[in-house]
Amino acid sequence: MQVEKEIEYKAIGVFKSNYTPETGAPRQGMLRPDETARIEIFEPYREALKSLDEFEYILVFYHFNLTGDWEPIVNPPGSSHEHEFGLFSTRSPRRPNPLGFTLVKLDSIKDGILYIKGSDAFNGSPVIDIKPFLPSVDSVESSINWYVEKELGHHDEDFIDDPEFYR
Amino acid sequence: MQVEKEIEYKAIGVFKSNYTPETGAPRQGMLRPDETARIEIFEPYREALKSLDEFEYILVFYHFNLTGDWEPIVNPPGSSHEHEFGLFSTRSPRRPNPLGFTLVKLDSIKDGILYIKGSDAFNGSPVIDIKPFLPSVDSVESSINWYVEKELGHHDEDFIDDPEFYR
Repeated sequence: MQVEKEIEYKAIGVFKSNYTPETGAPRQGMLRPDETARIEIFEPYREALKSLDEFEYILVFYHFNLTGDWEPIVNPPGSSHEHEFGLFSTRSPRRPNPLGFTLVKLDSIKDGILYIKGSDAFNGSPVIDIKPFLPSVDSVESSINWYVEKELGHHDEDFIDDPEFYR
Repeated sequence: MQVEKEIEYKAIGVFKSNYTPETGAPRQGMLRPDETARIEIFEPYREALKSLDEFEYILVFYHFNLTGDWEPIVNPPGSSHEHEFGLFSTRSPRRPNPLGFTLVKLDSIKDGILYIKGSDAFNGSPVIDIKPFLPSVDSVESSINWYVEKELGHHDEDFIDDPEFYR
């Protein structure tokens, strides 16, 4: 079976947030749940927002447009380990395909603008897709994942990434 | 701030599963948690798998390469509603950017092949990214999302999508 080599996506909207490469951003948005941001959906896609506001939490997929080249092995900021991790076992933005993913709280939608809380995206990040968060299939109990998450340093209190990490 | 209009991704691997457009697929893979599948990661990306096998559950991002044109309003299969839903409030594969997302159980990794359970992807789907599932930021308690998920029909027992839905 042939695999498509190139996949072309287009921005359906854009993040408006207080985070920039100069300020840094929380490693994951849910670590700052009260931080507000907006997503402006472009006109051709606004009709597709119908009934999304029935959900309290949504999944946002976006493009890390400011990130640097990817590397297969990284040492995530906040990790207490001395050994290094494969990129796919981290949430580093420096990925072969720099696709960002964040679970956010949806406060309201008006005139094609989503008012959200708990995002980690930089201002100006292109948005690729929005999906509802479906608890029955998008979450699972796993003590192993909790443990490894902590080991990898994702719980670290000093959770604002060094801006240098993004260059 | 300028928004990138085109985003180019490339396949980092490919799904090998028992699901095809002829068989259909579960609306969400976790509804068939024991169904096994594989993800073959291409050679340039295999080094980046290091330490991923410490996680029990991972997030897989892939491309719906067989899906049809997107429509802003859909009526998800299994929905008991008579009114229709905006695309972004559903998990239909017919999206402006046909990006698939699935939480799966990772059994093992050997020679660049991920042995997984609970996937919903068709055989041959290009894989775009792999991330660890981090319970502290990727899941949240929301009775509202549980309720709306049920209303939208995502819990429906007859959960194998009509293959016609993908054409």
